[in-house]
Amino acid sequence: MGMIGGGPGAFIGAVHRTAAAMDGLIDLVCGSFSSNAARSKQMGEDLNLSPERVYDSFEEMIQKEAKLPDNVRMDFVSIVTPNHVHFAPAKAALEAGFDVVMDKPMTFDLKEAKELKAIVEKTGKHLCLTHTYSGYPMIKEAKEQVRKGALGKVRKIFVTYPQGWLHSFLEASPDQKQASWRTDPSRSGIAGAMGDIGTHAFNLAEYVTGLQTSALCAQINVVVEGRKLDDDGAVFLQYNNGATGLLVASQVLTGEENNLTIRVYGEKGGLEWSHADPNSLLLKWPDAPMQVLRAGTGYVSDVAKYNTRTPAGHPEGFLEAFANHYRNFALCVNARENGEQPKEEWLDFPTAEDGVRGMAFIETVIASGKSDKKWMKFDV
Amino acid sequence: MGMIGGGPGAFIGAVHRTAAAMDGLIDLVCGSFSSNAARSKQMGEDLNLSPERVYDSFEEMIQKEAKLPDNVRMDFVSIVTPNHVHFAPAKAALEAGFDVVMDKPMTFDLKEAKELKAIVEKTGKHLCLTHTYSGYPMIKEAKEQVRKGALGKVRKIFVTYPQGWLHSFLEASPDQKQASWRTDPSRSGIAGAMGDIGTHAFNLAEYVTGLQTSALCAQINVVVEGRKLDDDGAVFLQYNNGATGLLVASQVLTGEENNLTIRVYGEKGGLEWSHADPNSLLLKWPDAPMQVLRAGTGYVSDVAKYNTRTPAGHPEGFLEAFANHYRNFALCVNARENGEQPKEEWLDFPTAEDGVRGMAFIETVIASGKSDKKWMKFDV
Amino acid sequence: MGMIGGGPGAFIGAVHRTAAAMDGLIDLVCGSFSSNAARSKQMGEDLNLSPERVYDSFEEMIQKEAKLPDNVRMDFVSIVTPNHVHFAPAKAALEAGFDVVMDKPMTFDLKEAKELKAIVEKTGKHLCLTHTYSGYPMIKEAKEQVRKGALGKVRKIFVTYPQGWLHSFLEASPDQKQASWRTDPSRSGIAGAMGDIGTHAFNLAEYVTGLQTSALCAQINVVVEGRKLDDDGAVFLQYNNGATGLLVASQVLTGEENNLTIRVYGEKGGLEWSHADPNSLLLKWPDAPMQVLRAGTGYVSDVAKYNTRTPAGHPEGFLEAFANHYRNFALCVNARENGEQPKEEWLDFPTAEDGVRGMAFIETVIASGKSDKKWMKFDV
Amino acid sequence: MGMIGGGPGAFIGAVHRTAAAMDGLIDLVCGSFSSNAARSKQMGEDLNLSPERVYDSFEEMIQKEAKLPDNVRMDFVSIVTPNHVHFAPAKAALEAGFDVVMDKPMTFDLKEAKELKAIVEKTGKHLCLTHTYSGYPMIKEAKEQVRKGALGKVRKIFVTYPQGWLHSFLEASPDQKQASWRTDPSRSGIAGAMGDIGTHAFNLAEYVTGLQTSALCAQINVVVEGRKLDDDGAVFLQYNNGATGLLVASQVLTGEENNLTIRVYGEKGGLEWSHADPNSLLLKWPDAPMQVLRAGTGYVSDVAKYNTRTPAGHPEGFLEAFANHYRNFALCVNARENGEQPKEEWLDFPTAEDGVRGMAFIETVIASGKSDKKWMKFDV
Repeated sequence: MGMIGGGPGAFIGAVHRTAAAMDGLIDLVCGSFSSNAARSKQMGEDLNLSPERVYDSFEEMIQKEAKLPDNVRMDFVSIVTPNHVHFAPAKAALEAGFDVVMDKPMTFDLKEAKELKAIVEKTGKHLCLTHTYSGYPMIKEAKEQVRKGALGKVRKIFVTYPQGWLHSFLEASPDQKQASWRTDPSRSGIAGAMGDIGTHAFNLAEYVTGLQTSALCAQINVVVEGRKLDDDGAVFLQYNNGATGLLVASQVLTGEENNLTIRVYGEKGGLEWSHADPNSLLLKWPDAPMQVLRAGTGYVSDVAKYNTRTPAGHPEGFLEAFANHYRNFALCVNARENGEQPKEEWLDFPTAEDGVRGMAFIETVIASGKSDKKWMKFDV
Repeated sequence: MGMIGGGPGAFIGAVHRTAAAMDGLIDLVCGSFSSNAARSKQMGEDLNLSPERVYDSFEEMIQKEAKLPDNVRMDFVSIVTPNHVHFAPAKAALEAGFDVVMDKPMTFDLKEAKELKAIVEKTGKHLCLTHTYSGYPMIKEAKEQVRKGALGKVRKIFVTYPQGWLHSFLEASPDQKQASWRTDPSRSGIAGAMGDIGTHAFNLAEYVTGLQTSALCAQINVVVEGRKLDDDGAVFLQYNNGATGLLVASQVLTGEENNLTIRVYGEKGGLEWSHADPNSLLLKWPDAPMQVLRAGTGYVSDVAKYNTRTPAGHPEGFLEAFANHYRNFALCVNARENGEQPKEEWLDFPTAEDGVRGMAFIETVIASGKSDKKWMKFDV
Repeated sequence: MGMIGGGPGAFIGAVHRTAAAMDGLIDLVCGSFSSNAARSKQMGEDLNLSPERVYDSFEEMIQKEAKLPDNVRMDFVSIVTPNHVHFAPAKAALEAGFDVVMDKPMTFDLKEAKELKAIVEKTGKHLCLTHTYSGYPMIKEAKEQVRKGALGKVRKIFVTYPQGWLHSFLEASPDQKQASWRTDPSRSGIAGAMGDIGTHAFNLAEYVTGLQTSALCAQINVVVEGRKLDDDGAVFLQYNNGATGLLVASQVLTGEENNLTIRVYGEKGGLEWSHADPNSLLLKWPDAPMQVLRAGTGYVSDVAKYNTRTPAGHPEGFLEAFANHYRNFALCVNARENGEQPKEEWLDFPTAEDGVRGMAFIETVIASGKSDKKWMKFDV
Repeated sequence: MGMIGGGPGAFIGAVHRTAAAMDGLIDLVCGSFSSNAARSKQMGEDLNLSPERVYDSFEEMIQKEAKLPDNVRMDFVSIVTPNHVHFAPAKAALEAGFDVVMDKPMTFDLKEAKELKAIVEKTGKHLCLTHTYSGYPMIKEAKEQVRKGALGKVRKIFVTYPQGWLHSFLEASPDQKQASWRTDPSRSGIAGAMGDIGTHAFNLAEYVTGLQTSALCAQINVVVEGRKLDDDGAVFLQYNNGATGLLVASQVLTGEENNLTIRVYGEKGGLEWSHADPNSLLLKWPDAPMQVLRAGTGYVSDVAKYNTRTPAGHPEGFLEAFANHYRNFALCVNARENGEQPKEEWLDFPTAEDGVRGMAFIETVIASGKSDKKWMKFDV
């Protein structure tokens, strides 16, 4: 694996590296860690990479690695830059024959997303978009419970992503890199919170239920004075089976951490999963006690089991969920290289299709937020 | 106290009687428990009332009790009938000189509500509207935390009232009295879930924050086929200080009980209270650990203390919260009768003013649900 | 009902009065609230009692009430004094023909307990000992789950009663009445924490499992310097079916409130109930998800239903659990007076038999704490 | 790193490999994965190791690796075999110049443990004993809170390790390898549950409080018929500062997973940590609200921060805690090789000293379980 972005201090770069390393399937062999060559160099040293494989730019990395012998060159690229530097390296990598893992949202805007999806399809490469939360075993279990009809027809979906870290004007401070680019339209795109975490929530709801959004109505707010992008919002949703939903994404809920929560209700039962207790899944019934399903047990579905590394009662978390996407992606890439068929459970990671839907969500939700009309069709 | 409604099998009638009895301040002395005279009689017997004070109609009760000597006649009326029989007995009682406790929503429609409020003002009697949840000690504490500025300026309010008991077409069954009238426009009014529980949520948000709703946008659904009134909905809210909010009220969330939850976020901190754990209040801070405040402790506010009967760790619940409203109401009535000034903490129960706002909420939210326009002003 | 003890400021007296009033079955008609006549008088006034029925001593009350006409005199006596004033009034009341409700532990020592039990048997009166916790509906459900064999043969019992309020030398302060008598051997008896809360835990374990303690080994501590009685301890238990158990009772666990917890494990499953969430009962299974049973639902046992006043999701608490004992006691007394057979579910309150076992627990546990021998037989 | 044990299907071997890989500091380069050469070979293949570095026995591995050039040979050995194969490979590795990571309990008996500790001291190598739980960031925080005196003088310690997986006679089944060796005195030693998980609990209590056990009294049970070693037990503890404690370790608590819990109470406050929610630490105060400290926040101690990889709200778990020990060990080994002083925070992993104390716990607790005497001195 070669990494683009993820220089000193970048939270998500370190997460990608740890997640990739966890299962012993993937080695980091090269990187272009920063647009600042000295910082990239420094990062390479910290990671004990050969200096000649720490590059000054992603273009250089892709070009030079492509020329290395098969058994030396990186197998794939991991892109962990801010949003405005997603499309170009992804396109370059794919067209140079590299598979791609990349952080969300997929691109800077919907147009880029559609173009990138076309490139993926043309090149036949894998693109894995790291919507972490669908990597959790009990989210897999939730999806399976819905799929097999345990809840009956789905009627209502609530997905809430509360954060508090942007409750003040953090971006005023020059050393707040995370806050700075995420609130800057020139690097983040047209959305703030809705792009950064709203897309996670949107993706999770569609992943768990297998439904597709058909219309929405958004209330989008800039709560903190001086901020340039939305930091808070709520969205009414309509789904293609007639269900309705509610999505909340906010980064100004003072004191909240990162407790993404999803609740789904059908004719026969309901489910609830919360990131604060990710190894549990609650199933609620009208005439029987609530059940607490737990990761690592013998009674969960095969797909939940496959995505767990330890027995029940040994908590797994964010890094393991992330690693599940990397593992599946790596196994798929490997299978293709060996001319083998990937197993169905390996194909279970977010793709360019999810990326396009996420970018469409961003554009629709921001447009709806500005509109006096109640409903806006969601049509990709 | 004389009771109107609350015949055999009526859930809320029994709740009112228990709540009224709890503090030894109030005796049930008469009642007109059912429009069916035999059932009213039966109920009176079950409650060991003198047969001559069990009446065939509320009109008869009010008329006859009014003629009894001071030290014999009932002190006030408690009205626990379905919504379409709220206004008439309340009007009659007030005009006959009786104070009134009544269940929510206050009336069948907004017009009645405004008229009733005018009668209250004219007669100088007390009207207590039993929005139970503002009777909880940790809701009092929440209000106090907001009032004293612990959270800073309020920015965001979430209030969610999930129930599941109407997830099926219960009203088809003739013995389902609770479901039957609540889903019947001729007895419930224009709203189902929004009237029955949405008004509780609406009231709680305004009570805790001291803010007033200024506009709203609703998504209102009839989920269960054949049902005549809304059973599910969500509402974007705008408040008079610029804050925004989100209200959810649904009776079709299969497997849910009655877990009303409120979360309020300000510039400096957030709070969370949930009916499933009513003796705790969570305070969340950006740079310090979350605190769990508990009812019955020494560190909570005086108003929280006043509304608790036992020390910390001795759970109090729904009936005690209800009893707090009855106690305050009774103390105020008593003070007035004795020509005394009521203490400020006694005046803390929901009034006709809350009733009018609740009915305005119902009318606005149902209108918004039908409208293509996004925002509707809330103006009472 | 006539009350002995429960003067101004007494926590448990107020609890008894509220619990007795709750269901409208019991009226407080007289009292001897304090050994100080002026304080007794004051309390009677606060409670709006007729001055002539507020007595200077319990002897006077029993004597005078016994002479009143049937339909006027108190039906039974409620004794809420410190432990050293339990036996005498109970004996006097029973022998004067009154049934008795009394707080725990039943007497000052085991000898008194056995004598009182004999008096109960001789007089044929009811004695209700207010071990509150067996009044909770989900404790009834727990007992029923064990009884019907859901857990299989019981193997292990944990019961833990943590309090923190005596973590400092509170009894040094003259206005700390609660702390003062509870830590005073002349009023409390030979045990402190083990008598005050250990007996609750001991009783709960036997109630839920239907087992009887056969031997024990105790570690008893006086943690706070200067204190005269135990304030902390743990006990290994052996039960008559071969199960073992562990009991913890402490009043110096700084920061703890009153979270009595019981866990029972059998061959087939386990259960857990905690006072902090008293309306839930956890059932744990080896090969199936944990279930959360909830008070007020349709699926719980009849006895759990009978002991709940509101539907699921309407929290009931300490006062309702307490009231359940009062209600059962009152219904039994009433049935006997009417020459009727009490229903089986009414007979479900702690009796003199429980009182004797509790006093035997106190004597055995304190003796074991002082002994170098490991095991001490428990034999009543 | 070279691994001894951890062949196909071995739970803890996979855990060690994942934990070692996680931070990109350690590569698995060789192994002797099974006493069965074919199974060892197979495991090597699964792990993509060079066939010539997959060995038939640990003796062969240590001997051959020792002869490889510095930059090729393994840096250290990881021993993940059953207890009876701990001492020999550890001794061999240390004496051949390799540092050692090994699973707990350290050896088969106390004699071996003392000998091994002496070898560690003689060779100057590092030995890391993987008592996982002290690797959790919020356990580090708990230790720090005690150390800095936030709780005042420690008075009471509760540590409970409940498991349920051995509630039936699992070892009867030949394919139950985990159950088989753990319940076999010839492979596990004289203790079952007390050795397997009791030692974890014992270690955690001493780690968090900094206290040392001075005496104990144990109730040790074999609950499941036919079992050869203890599967359940409880222990009263005395500590060297006068505090007392209670330790529970059981593998027959049907339905329990692995929820190790520790609670510590001092004069000024209490703390609670539970493996089911490992990223939280509860601090309890007598006159102030309970606080919930969370991993990854800005307000926790430096040592807690150092042992966390992600920001607050991104759950870390068992593998990360395990990895923290590996990381510290690897950094210490590396520092020594480079002639540098290890940082203080790196030296924070369990050592041979902990191993000796753990083995002494096993011997004392089993002896106490058989004794009629109440107290047994703990003296190492």
